[in-house]
Amino acid sequence: MNREWEILQIPGPTPIPPSVERAMVQPMIGHRGQKCKELVEDIAPRLKPIFGTTGDVLVLSSSGTSALEAAVVNTTSPGDEVIVVVAGAFGDRFAKICNTYELDVHRIDVEGGRAVEVAAIEEQLQAHPNVKAVFITHCETSTGVMHPVEEIAEKVHDASDALVIVDGVSSIGGAPVDMDGSGIDLLVSGSQKAMMLPAGLAFVAVSDQAWKVINDNPRPRFYLDLRSYKKSLDNGQTPFTPALSLLFGLQEVLSLIEDEGLENVHERHRVMKEMTRAAFRALNVPLFVSEEDASTTVTSVRPQTFEAEQFRKIANQEFGLMTAGGQQNLKGEIFRIGHMGYSRPANVLQYISIIEIVLKRLGHDFEQGVGTAAAQEAYLQATRELD
Amino acid sequence: MNREWEILQIPGPTPIPPSVERAMVQPMIGHRGQKCKELVEDIAPRLKPIFGTTGDVLVLSSSGTSALEAAVVNTTSPGDEVIVVVAGAFGDRFAKICNTYELDVHRIDVEGGRAVEVAAIEEQLQAHPNVKAVFITHCETSTGVMHPVEEIAEKVHDASDALVIVDGVSSIGGAPVDMDGSGIDLLVSGSQKAMMLPAGLAFVAVSDQAWKVINDNPRPRFYLDLRSYKKSLDNGQTPFTPALSLLFGLQEVLSLIEDEGLENVHERHRVMKEMTRAAFRALNVPLFVSEEDASTTVTSVRPQTFEAEQFRKIANQEFGLMTAGGQQNLKGEIFRIGHMGYSRPANVLQYISIIEIVLKRLGHDFEQGVGTAAAQEAYLQATRELD
Repeated sequence: MNREWEILQIPGPTPIPPSVERAMVQPMIGHRGQKCKELVEDIAPRLKPIFGTTGDVLVLSSSGTSALEAAVVNTTSPGDEVIVVVAGAFGDRFAKICNTYELDVHRIDVEGGRAVEVAAIEEQLQAHPNVKAVFITHCETSTGVMHPVEEIAEKVHDASDALVIVDGVSSIGGAPVDMDGSGIDLLVSGSQKAMMLPAGLAFVAVSDQAWKVINDNPRPRFYLDLRSYKKSLDNGQTPFTPALSLLFGLQEVLSLIEDEGLENVHERHRVMKEMTRAAFRALNVPLFVSEEDASTTVTSVRPQTFEAEQFRKIANQEFGLMTAGGQQNLKGEIFRIGHMGYSRPANVLQYISIIEIVLKRLGHDFEQGVGTAAAQEAYLQATRELD
Repeated sequence: MNREWEILQIPGPTPIPPSVERAMVQPMIGHRGQKCKELVEDIAPRLKPIFGTTGDVLVLSSSGTSALEAAVVNTTSPGDEVIVVVAGAFGDRFAKICNTYELDVHRIDVEGGRAVEVAAIEEQLQAHPNVKAVFITHCETSTGVMHPVEEIAEKVHDASDALVIVDGVSSIGGAPVDMDGSGIDLLVSGSQKAMMLPAGLAFVAVSDQAWKVINDNPRPRFYLDLRSYKKSLDNGQTPFTPALSLLFGLQEVLSLIEDEGLENVHERHRVMKEMTRAAFRALNVPLFVSEEDASTTVTSVRPQTFEAEQFRKIANQEFGLMTAGGQQNLKGEIFRIGHMGYSRPANVLQYISIIEIVLKRLGHDFEQGVGTAAAQEAYLQATRELD
């Protein structure tokens, strides 16, 4: 299938809105001039509500993983005890980074498809009272699980002085997070998921409590030293040459989100989740994650009557519909659909209808149209009647 | 609805493929230099199969109506008798141009929603043996009727020496026309329909027979003088400064059509027509045009249980789905859906599913999902099983 015809419904990178594409092709500017200062100072306050904070949201020119690494190197020293919740590939990545930086990692492994039990974290905190930080993934992209990070943050702070560090790469912009209200200390994200940009920007939102730790932390770091970003930002600058075209695009993304209204953006994602899940239930194709643990930005499906990879291949070859496969031990077991960023109910209606045709090709037994009808019904339930 | 979210399913202008958008933003070149000559000489032969001819296809930098006018001013002189088939707004436009240029116009008015009877043309030719040209619209965009222009061309040539002049603005690129085989003399089109470009280019394909008439025709004309275009084209030039960005785009459009294969392009349009019509039949919303007269590029619907304009308003406001209303006496009576150019079965699946939701809003009585199921079934019938 020619790339012109692709329908990109993987959980990131996600499609770029046309106005953002246009914004990104502006002429370059000097990164130490007044225009860049205006750009940086325009973006900084507008990012805050998306991260649920009135504190600093730092923008790094690097991809999402660098924000995870920045969270680790800025808050910890070798030998520090940390808890890492691992419920999939991205929790595992947090753990790997912590191991790389010689931390004493207490892993809480959670079975694929389930959110972590808050009690399990409390138990680990009791068992290891010196834990300096709890690392947790908000949306575990590899499984479509969304962990209750706000509740976890509150419970961790009730029980200890540990920082709560959240990977929001595939949730921020698509799901609400009350960082300040729940006491999350670091909330990191990337540009290529619900933020509707190409990869290349990383975001790190930092609480006051976290700044104390970061400022006192002696671990060597340079490009990822958040103190440099903070010091520069206070002067309307970036410490190193920023990815300017992505900043131009980010400015337009912020306008799109503000025009739609952040609450409406989050509601749109919730509706897409409900529509997608309703369709697969009606089609009798099992969802991998239970209703209460399911992400609003990515849905995982674990087919029983056909091969996940065969499904993906036909959807791709016949309709250019790009979905994601399973990772690690879920390879070949599940497929994943991203519905975040520049995606909306009309996109869900399209991919569900395509999927019904693919299921026919695969010989899956269902009544033609029932998946679509269920998605439509979920949409109608979620929206008020028009006047 | 923000323009970022629009789903443009009107019968032109149509969406532009991303690679065509990119092709159009190349730096300007001199229009008398070698690069422009290469551009013009690359495009000319590649246009021919799309018009079903081995003859000249001239490219004018102007919109589709100019090609209609060029057809009139190049082939006729004041007082000439002509036949014009008028089955809607665009047939009417041909007649208006003929009247403007002081021709003796014999109109064949056809009721909206019906194709012209070939016998009616034959009768007019018998009644007016001096007729110099027969003007006919291939796809009457205002109603979604497709006239049998190939059969008409054959019959006209059997009965007279009149030229057969066809408006292919909303068909060329979406429907096959055997210009040479059927003896069509002028076949004109525009860039903004199935040719996947913005408006701004007009195409005029000319038969040898037509050239004789054009070359001998004393009527004054300048910008639309096809002799200038022919003379320039034979030297790899254009007579006036061409719309270069559109030519850059056209080059990419030709590559897209060639990559897909022209027959496959036409088949894709036929399938979209079948899917769309099957859906409305299943939804019990009357189609305006009968099966045998229906266009492969635009479908007209004449609702009975709800207002066409109310339908269009909700589809637009809630989903950004842009459809077209009726024109002239059909205003408020029908709505029209374009499915041509950068559109494919996946787009039909999307708009049908959206339309089902809009029909619910309007209180139309149907079983949720039956329209989608019918479109899917039409698609499955039209395509072979995958291996």
